[in-house]
Amino acid sequence: MHIVVVAFDGFTDIDLFMPWDLFHRVKDPEYAGFTGPWRVSICAKNSEICSYSGVSIRAHGPLSWAREADAVFVVSGPGSRKALKDPAFIEELRLDPSRQTIAAIDSGVLILVKLGLLDGLTATTYPSVFAELEAMGVKAEHKPIVVHGNVATGGGCLATQDLASWVVGRLAGAAAARAILESVAKVGA
Amino acid sequence: MHIVVVAFDGFTDIDLFMPWDLFHRVKDPEYAGFTGPWRVSICAKNSEICSYSGVSIRAHGPLSWAREADAVFVVSGPGSRKALKDPAFIEELRLDPSRQTIAAIDSGVLILVKLGLLDGLTATTYPSVFAELEAMGVKAEHKPIVVHGNVATGGGCLATQDLASWVVGRLAGAAAARAILESVAKVGA
Repeated sequence: MHIVVVAFDGFTDIDLFMPWDLFHRVKDPEYAGFTGPWRVSICAKNSEICSYSGVSIRAHGPLSWAREADAVFVVSGPGSRKALKDPAFIEELRLDPSRQTIAAIDSGVLILVKLGLLDGLTATTYPSVFAELEAMGVKAEHKPIVVHGNVATGGGCLATQDLASWVVGRLAGAAAARAILESVAKVGA
Repeated sequence: MHIVVVAFDGFTDIDLFMPWDLFHRVKDPEYAGFTGPWRVSICAKNSEICSYSGVSIRAHGPLSWAREADAVFVVSGPGSRKALKDPAFIEELRLDPSRQTIAAIDSGVLILVKLGLLDGLTATTYPSVFAELEAMGVKAEHKPIVVHGNVATGGGCLATQDLASWVVGRLAGAAAARAILESVAKVGA
């Protein structure tokens, strides 16, 4: 199984590193201990990307990897607006919801809209992004996560947990999906 | 105000990037909009550090910056055990709880123990680390966060939120502390 985390310059740190870390835990024996094939890649247009807060990281591969992935997770952040307007970025993401599990958080949801993946569907996003979502023709639902078949959207940075768990549930089973959430839970919570 | 996030090779991604991003939001007008002086630095022994999952980032400065900071946040991760046994690492962290706000998450708490900052006090940590904590002579409390004066410990990755909010409350006020938590809350939660 290969999960591609789609990112861009100006990503929000939590929205990338929370799902990244949770996906990483799937194969970690201390956490979910999934023994099947498992690979997670951060993919971007450029080989190095910088978060909105100034953290630079190297991408593992190009955006084109997303088209061959089993699951795709689109991150969020102020940089999503520039990515949206970049035909080369959008063109690389010809995702196929009939065979791929696809998730997006907050303003990353706008990228799914642009790709036509939410046509006729509802979605959630970050509170300050609801107006943009509706202006693009998608009906908003004020929920942490909205799922339509193989496509899920999340609203509020901490909903990245629910999205990541949903993706893992489909690719590695319910036990792994639960285990990764338990591995980050507050003690005594 | 200067917050130093103390890190090391083998840090847990969520435990560094969650507080880092939350601290960043304090000065962001979209979130807390704090207008006072505000600076956040990731400090480590080496100029580049790599997380347990393989994410490499550049540190902003050396560990010695922690001694002059207003607040210090010690991250967690498998690499904490090597840091604990490294006299050069520990020696650089001569923190002063009489004038500094000090927090640590999960196995980062063991570093506070090593520094003598939890002598005679209780603390929390990650569930699998409680035995190590008690073996070092600190009584464990199974809570998300345990505060003693200027020193706080957190247990479970998501308790980084509570710790970060506690630090921000002391340095930038209660409104900012609330605002950063609200800025990452799940929609409709």
